[in-house]
Amino acid sequence: MELRERPHPWNDYNGPHDDVIMSCRVRLARNLAGFPFVNRASSTQCHEMLRMARRIVLTDDVAPGMIWVDINSATSRDRALLMERHLISKNFSESSHARAVAVSGDESLSVMVNEEDHLRMQLLRPGLQLEDAFERINAVDDAIESRLDYAFSSRWGYLTACPTNVGTGIRFSVMAHLPALKITGEVDRVKRAAKDLNLAVRGYYGEGTESAGDFYQISNQITLGRSETELRDEFQKQILPHIIQYEQESRQVLVDRNPILLDDRVHRAFAILKTARLLGVEEAMKLLSRVRLGLYLERIADVDLNAINRLFLQIQPAHLQLHAESRLSNEEMRQARADLVRSTLGG
Amino acid sequence: MELRERPHPWNDYNGPHDDVIMSCRVRLARNLAGFPFVNRASSTQCHEMLRMARRIVLTDDVAPGMIWVDINSATSRDRALLMERHLISKNFSESSHARAVAVSGDESLSVMVNEEDHLRMQLLRPGLQLEDAFERINAVDDAIESRLDYAFSSRWGYLTACPTNVGTGIRFSVMAHLPALKITGEVDRVKRAAKDLNLAVRGYYGEGTESAGDFYQISNQITLGRSETELRDEFQKQILPHIIQYEQESRQVLVDRNPILLDDRVHRAFAILKTARLLGVEEAMKLLSRVRLGLYLERIADVDLNAINRLFLQIQPAHLQLHAESRLSNEEMRQARADLVRSTLGG
Repeated sequence: MELRERPHPWNDYNGPHDDVIMSCRVRLARNLAGFPFVNRASSTQCHEMLRMARRIVLTDDVAPGMIWVDINSATSRDRALLMERHLISKNFSESSHARAVAVSGDESLSVMVNEEDHLRMQLLRPGLQLEDAFERINAVDDAIESRLDYAFSSRWGYLTACPTNVGTGIRFSVMAHLPALKITGEVDRVKRAAKDLNLAVRGYYGEGTESAGDFYQISNQITLGRSETELRDEFQKQILPHIIQYEQESRQVLVDRNPILLDDRVHRAFAILKTARLLGVEEAMKLLSRVRLGLYLERIADVDLNAINRLFLQIQPAHLQLHAESRLSNEEMRQARADLVRSTLGG
Repeated sequence: MELRERPHPWNDYNGPHDDVIMSCRVRLARNLAGFPFVNRASSTQCHEMLRMARRIVLTDDVAPGMIWVDINSATSRDRALLMERHLISKNFSESSHARAVAVSGDESLSVMVNEEDHLRMQLLRPGLQLEDAFERINAVDDAIESRLDYAFSSRWGYLTACPTNVGTGIRFSVMAHLPALKITGEVDRVKRAAKDLNLAVRGYYGEGTESAGDFYQISNQITLGRSETELRDEFQKQILPHIIQYEQESRQVLVDRNPILLDDRVHRAFAILKTARLLGVEEAMKLLSRVRLGLYLERIADVDLNAINRLFLQIQPAHLQLHAESRLSNEEMRQARADLVRSTLGG
């Protein structure tokens, strides 16, 4: 298991609209013809699926440097690591049947095997570049499809375990950073509007998780009756620009209405990060969020945006545990987090 | 009215045991023979008392550089200034009958005229030096008594408006800084023990006020049946050493049990003071208290203790108002406070 030393080559999160869109993701749900869906499959069938998927997915024409992680035999820390890197879902991390994930060398691609569907492939990209992500995952999909038969109906399209995924089996999502909408309280309005637009607004680790650091995962919900490119264009060109603009306008409101209050929030946050000796993950996420906001609004300088972006990941529990000799207690975790943040920010 | 530019020459607060005892005070309650107590005096009698007191008190053999402040004609800001400097009581500041205060050039002596008693004289000294304060106020008392007759009974001693002051009319008090006892929650135990010892534990501005910045005014309550020196020695040599030791031991407990938590509190406080753009008075007092604690425990350096001590006074509303062109709104006050603290601490 090579997760320990893996770098995060794409994790500088620099991409179009990265002031609001930290990263984007395209996910495909696929099932194999002739196999029952995972929730109806026997243990033997699950294992057979794993063997087949492993043989097909671990090749360089799918993606360079693919590794295979057997989730059942992985430690709880490694499962948490994968989740913190957004490479597997929370449900997938916590269930107990035979399952695995394949991850590309640059960690932009992951293929969960025996999640809700036989194959759940996702492609992550920094910023808002869904076309690029879409092209890349199509290539992966084609490479895999060339070696096995997907469950496909000429009437319904790709068949999936949950009806909401039937059709294209595609989902587009972004990790949006909405600190200004959070401060102004308008994020709830965004959530309500999103519902009307058939969008899902979820937490930092997707379905069933809470927002953290003012990050929200926003995704389209419709997969049936439209082509992938129609869905993508609607999401990227019609829906997301509104959300980006709404957040940007809210940021400008903070600057215009009360720049001193904004500076107070930003500079306090930065000062605490640079000096605290103990930091909980929620507080650290909140403070990093304010510094990130302050950087884009040019209220502070002398700190590297990429260092802040990386810290959002590095302060997560399993990542802190990576560099520790032994299992950290809660208190030691808070201390290790503060030490890491302080040394990173030169406090 | 010269309050605006007055310095605070004794306000560096350096004196014996100043780690715990910020300042000490001796107060004498005196009334004039042949005049009714203030609460029974007519307006004419109150004014007569003011004229007489003014003539007697404003002389250099009472104290150098005495000034006279007519509280009735003083602005509300000036009344607040005097209270913030602990030169008049809250009640005195707020009542409406004819009253005045005489203050010495170094502000160590103040004589309230027509407070609860005709004359309420107090002598403030930094640290714990009650003998010195006692000698000084005795000289003041003698100088005044040489020019008028105090109401005195050979059986009861000095007669006062409230029976609790009859006898010596003396009260000893200290402004104790008890941040460690506050953090450990033991300050409530101190309060209960103090009650059993006939001590009063009051807030930052004395009777009827709340603690702020972990400061507590502690005073003896007995004035009858004992000599002044007995009362002083019991307070200074028996009672206060216990309180000082209790606070010092609590500080050591913070160092021994969890130095990282202590450093977290101290360094966060200092960082916020150096960077905040908006500061309420309560928050500022609390943060300054933690920095003061950190300085005495040598958890931080590179900040001047006297600068911190002076800030406790300078951040009070009327003192902030001193340097403003026009009346500050609440928001402007919070901003002026943060600006002052930041520039003082080199943030």
